[in-house]
Amino acid sequence: MKRFMDEDFLLYSQTAKKLYEIAAEEPIFDFHCHLSPKAIYENEAPRDMAQLWLEGDHYKWRAMRANGIEEDYITGNSSGYEKFKAWAHTLPYCLGNPLYHWSHLELLRFFDIDTPLTPKTADHIWKMANKKICDGGFKPREIIRKFNVKAIFTTDDPVDELIYHRKLAAEKELDVRILPTFRPDKLLSIEKDGFSGYIKKLAETESMQIICMDDLKAVISRRIERFAEAGCVASDHSFSHIPFLRASQREIEDIFKKAMSGEGVTETEADKYKTAVVRFLCREYVKHGMAAQIHIGALRDNSTKMHRILGPDTGFDSINDRPIAQPLSRLLDSLEVEGILPKTVLYVLNPKDNYTVAAMAGNFQTGGQGSRMQFGAAWWMNDHIDGITRHLTDLANLGVLGRFIGMVTDSRSFLSYSRHEYFRRIMCDFIGNLVQTGVYPFDMDILPEIVRGISYRNAKEYFKVI
Amino acid sequence: MKRFMDEDFLLYSQTAKKLYEIAAEEPIFDFHCHLSPKAIYENEAPRDMAQLWLEGDHYKWRAMRANGIEEDYITGNSSGYEKFKAWAHTLPYCLGNPLYHWSHLELLRFFDIDTPLTPKTADHIWKMANKKICDGGFKPREIIRKFNVKAIFTTDDPVDELIYHRKLAAEKELDVRILPTFRPDKLLSIEKDGFSGYIKKLAETESMQIICMDDLKAVISRRIERFAEAGCVASDHSFSHIPFLRASQREIEDIFKKAMSGEGVTETEADKYKTAVVRFLCREYVKHGMAAQIHIGALRDNSTKMHRILGPDTGFDSINDRPIAQPLSRLLDSLEVEGILPKTVLYVLNPKDNYTVAAMAGNFQTGGQGSRMQFGAAWWMNDHIDGITRHLTDLANLGVLGRFIGMVTDSRSFLSYSRHEYFRRIMCDFIGNLVQTGVYPFDMDILPEIVRGISYRNAKEYFKVI
Amino acid sequence: MKRFMDEDFLLYSQTAKKLYEIAAEEPIFDFHCHLSPKAIYENEAPRDMAQLWLEGDHYKWRAMRANGIEEDYITGNSSGYEKFKAWAHTLPYCLGNPLYHWSHLELLRFFDIDTPLTPKTADHIWKMANKKICDGGFKPREIIRKFNVKAIFTTDDPVDELIYHRKLAAEKELDVRILPTFRPDKLLSIEKDGFSGYIKKLAETESMQIICMDDLKAVISRRIERFAEAGCVASDHSFSHIPFLRASQREIEDIFKKAMSGEGVTETEADKYKTAVVRFLCREYVKHGMAAQIHIGALRDNSTKMHRILGPDTGFDSINDRPIAQPLSRLLDSLEVEGILPKTVLYVLNPKDNYTVAAMAGNFQTGGQGSRMQFGAAWWMNDHIDGITRHLTDLANLGVLGRFIGMVTDSRSFLSYSRHEYFRRIMCDFIGNLVQTGVYPFDMDILPEIVRGISYRNAKEYFKVI
Repeated sequence: MKRFMDEDFLLYSQTAKKLYEIAAEEPIFDFHCHLSPKAIYENEAPRDMAQLWLEGDHYKWRAMRANGIEEDYITGNSSGYEKFKAWAHTLPYCLGNPLYHWSHLELLRFFDIDTPLTPKTADHIWKMANKKICDGGFKPREIIRKFNVKAIFTTDDPVDELIYHRKLAAEKELDVRILPTFRPDKLLSIEKDGFSGYIKKLAETESMQIICMDDLKAVISRRIERFAEAGCVASDHSFSHIPFLRASQREIEDIFKKAMSGEGVTETEADKYKTAVVRFLCREYVKHGMAAQIHIGALRDNSTKMHRILGPDTGFDSINDRPIAQPLSRLLDSLEVEGILPKTVLYVLNPKDNYTVAAMAGNFQTGGQGSRMQFGAAWWMNDHIDGITRHLTDLANLGVLGRFIGMVTDSRSFLSYSRHEYFRRIMCDFIGNLVQTGVYPFDMDILPEIVRGISYRNAKEYFKVI
Repeated sequence: MKRFMDEDFLLYSQTAKKLYEIAAEEPIFDFHCHLSPKAIYENEAPRDMAQLWLEGDHYKWRAMRANGIEEDYITGNSSGYEKFKAWAHTLPYCLGNPLYHWSHLELLRFFDIDTPLTPKTADHIWKMANKKICDGGFKPREIIRKFNVKAIFTTDDPVDELIYHRKLAAEKELDVRILPTFRPDKLLSIEKDGFSGYIKKLAETESMQIICMDDLKAVISRRIERFAEAGCVASDHSFSHIPFLRASQREIEDIFKKAMSGEGVTETEADKYKTAVVRFLCREYVKHGMAAQIHIGALRDNSTKMHRILGPDTGFDSINDRPIAQPLSRLLDSLEVEGILPKTVLYVLNPKDNYTVAAMAGNFQTGGQGSRMQFGAAWWMNDHIDGITRHLTDLANLGVLGRFIGMVTDSRSFLSYSRHEYFRRIMCDFIGNLVQTGVYPFDMDILPEIVRGISYRNAKEYFKVI
Repeated sequence: MKRFMDEDFLLYSQTAKKLYEIAAEEPIFDFHCHLSPKAIYENEAPRDMAQLWLEGDHYKWRAMRANGIEEDYITGNSSGYEKFKAWAHTLPYCLGNPLYHWSHLELLRFFDIDTPLTPKTADHIWKMANKKICDGGFKPREIIRKFNVKAIFTTDDPVDELIYHRKLAAEKELDVRILPTFRPDKLLSIEKDGFSGYIKKLAETESMQIICMDDLKAVISRRIERFAEAGCVASDHSFSHIPFLRASQREIEDIFKKAMSGEGVTETEADKYKTAVVRFLCREYVKHGMAAQIHIGALRDNSTKMHRILGPDTGFDSINDRPIAQPLSRLLDSLEVEGILPKTVLYVLNPKDNYTVAAMAGNFQTGGQGSRMQFGAAWWMNDHIDGITRHLTDLANLGVLGRFIGMVTDSRSFLSYSRHEYFRRIMCDFIGNLVQTGVYPFDMDILPEIVRGISYRNAKEYFKVI
């Protein structure tokens, strides 16, 4: 029996262990996360373990609900200590869940605590962790330094003024590049309430007026320019399905005006608008050398009741399952044929889509541009041993694994840098296993290069900002 | 090499073996099966091995057809002995198939026969098994007692008068609760021939008339009350796809009347009717504290030719693959927002839907109600080592495995109780493997509780009838 | 650590090794490939390793593009040596990819080279391989003999005059049956440019005129007769989705005439035409005792840009993901009910469809016809350790693995016969593993028969041409 989370955690062969030694030395390039640049700038220490570990962590909230914990101990008025206890009552039942691994990896790496969290050990761990927090070392920048993070791409709305990015950029001694990512989801959500208000707000950021599509495009161009000036080299999109419906300029114009006047639009109309705007955005991305990250398949805010109470990103999101191959093919092709297909990272939330998307990426690779189309790392509900292994397996089978740009935390928490360790261990075990089972040679000329590439260097080469 | 089906069958680690010792002691709570309450009440011994093993077993029939056996030896006029021989000629080719495991587990547990069934051993096994049947111990109630079954939920049509349930309930010495499940599939199948006839029959059960939707609802309410009085705490639905289309009362009324007049309805109309009736049913379920079991994705009666000859449930059913995330989200949300979402168990037949449904369940958990939304056990064509392991893996990754209410036989045969053993062995090996590979601690405070929970106690707690 | 690609490559248990010894002795029955009968007839030796290994191999091209190689070194004017070097620079990064295994298996079996190909070893291997080619043994017929190939089904368009098939059939000393397969994809592609031109060409082959559907059917009947006379016992279809829409004869006639006049047809119209023609084709197949092979889910020519430059089959194909269960069910049922369902092999490209199709096959098995409906071998993007293992697992779980007719190369290259070795090793390891883990007995009466069946004899029995 392997000891729980020992120094060889997730490494099941000698080759895996050797490869992980190499991977562990590489810095972190986190090209997609939801960290707050303000929090990094202000660099405040957390208050206690409840704030640091449970606030805003909708993964944990979701697990607590499924364990039957009352909402009051999750997002309600209970004390931090009570919430921590509720979490300790939940975690042991989460066997096999990545939360079990993440939580204990965080306890180990940040607090040197190797006691599993249970109702019995909760008080002890609560005290020890809070003492460590008091002792210091938990400010955002301390954590970033400790984990050797070289680049952080935050996720930012087009209306964002990027004040904190600018302030951070002005700091000389910072050993990490903190860059914004252009995430125009609200710009595309023409079917949602608040769209016209958002467009007005967008116009104001540039002191312009948006009446028609040309106005909109002009403002978008400016905003992308601002982001590019702030060092942005990547955009990010979330699509619950892939919209691809071509329409005449006239028709798009009518749909846009309809939405701006407050009238609802149909799904078909929304898809037409989105197709047009995404195509325009990609043209701009290519102009500025920005990559497109596309997150496919999140079905958000499923519970109207809880959305009314808690708002978005509170643990009520899920996985869509609509067919995506044909619209995705048409979208990417329509871009490529006009020379406006950016470097693209395609992430899927539904693992049934792994093959569809890994194969699709292969259709648009272009000689001399490295592996421009990337099948992005196992994301969100796939960010666990099984999901990461499956992603690596599927990518290996259908593409060129050695060119993979690797892992992102996609997280709101500074503690999540340990997920890069989690990923690298799984990745090294996966590759070690190929060697161990005789399907790849034990070639220590090439294997270290591949492992370093997937850990850090391929991403560095892909985004070219450090 | 592990010996075939030895005492440690499917248990590949020391931890797995230890956990299985604990699981094996738990009783059985079979909250979904197709056993006949009449057969339990009448408690007749089977005639011979052919009747006991092959009659009505469409899993075996299907395998025999795929092995090229003539229909006469499957459902035709051949003798029981000839059919048994045909099965013996088929089984060795079913390597890897759960039928191979189920059949041999049944031979072992019911007949103490550990010889694999082949054409060569067929005569010997035929004689031995028939001798055992003569010796006794194969009456339904004997089997139920032997397997320590504490609760059985049969599957019953709303028109059923539940006579045998009542008779069984009246028996004092019965050490098992045998309760009906409300299964209103025919009530919902407005698109099928025979719908209006069925509705008339339904009306007659309450000596009422059904002209309009209000009449229908009134009768449904009464029937659910009758079921509740008979101890029913669960309903059951089979959906080949998830219907969710809202429509006005007026429109539903028109669709219903159209169908009652014998006119066909379109798929869209059928979905509107189903949405309205399902929503009404859930309201009633909540009123009576009944759970909803939803079986998603069976595509039945694919062969018109064989359906004409043999009717339904004869081995010609298959798996649907339509997208379900969006309609399922809308259906559950529309219930939750009105406070009429029952405890719900969601089963999927297509394993590509595992992630979609396991994630969906997580959106509607509610504090203080345990794990009200359940991702139901690997069902029908997934009821095997690979399918059960995948279900447990996917549930563990996306939810709280420790709160899973576990296995059901879903069977027409009293021999199927050994499938709980099959499930528990796989489950204990799965959990044992988490410990063995160092991703969960060897904590003998918690592991036994989890294993007992999934085997029996979580279901007991969920349904609260024993 | 297992040595890379040693004599026990992919065989991880003693049972697997024993079974593979048996499998290795069986001949090859390759019932679906894209080899050129002209090339077999003319039997020319290859010029060099670049021609033999890289020409027309769009799998390798695709990998090179994903590795960032310039198109000039892939399909451009670079020399064979330069292209070989580019491939050597790519292959090490393809860890886990079947190309890694295929390539090294080919180096080993055809050239006795056991050095892994890397940039460093490229020159050495280039020289050694070319020397071997000079030394001889690489003519198509030499390879066919060496690999003990007993039957080859090529893939042929209905307009093909089968000249080389006839010439090959006339050769007395040939120890292999080389038979055409009727592949009417162009006949069905009514939505594509060039359809009416193709139909005219088809008419010319029989010196007939095609004005209406009856004319078309008459010509098709003749062409199928010609193929049958040339020994054809199988057809082959590629469907990106399953068309099934019934329409009146009148409507089909109108659609056909519309397309013949050069007007475009809608997808719905195309599906109606395809449904009618596929049903007619199946009627003819049954008449001639021909099997239908149906390849489901290829989404071809995704890159318009590259299609314009390089044409089809150049590495820009991908995987579709539309639901297929309902139309496939209706198509097969509509055939069975009229007695015109041929023996059918269903292949899927999207592994999410494995369960849907493996289960669907089971609905149309018919007693006394062996396993008439086959869930075809892991195909194209699934032709690797993981894909083959998953296919075998899924088939075993849902069907009768012992009746599986096994592997096809589906290849354009004579070197691909080593893929039968690849498949048999994986298959023997899969079956060995069932024995090793105690879920199937070590029964050396039955296991060799099963392994021989899947390797060769089941296909021989299925097609009955040797």
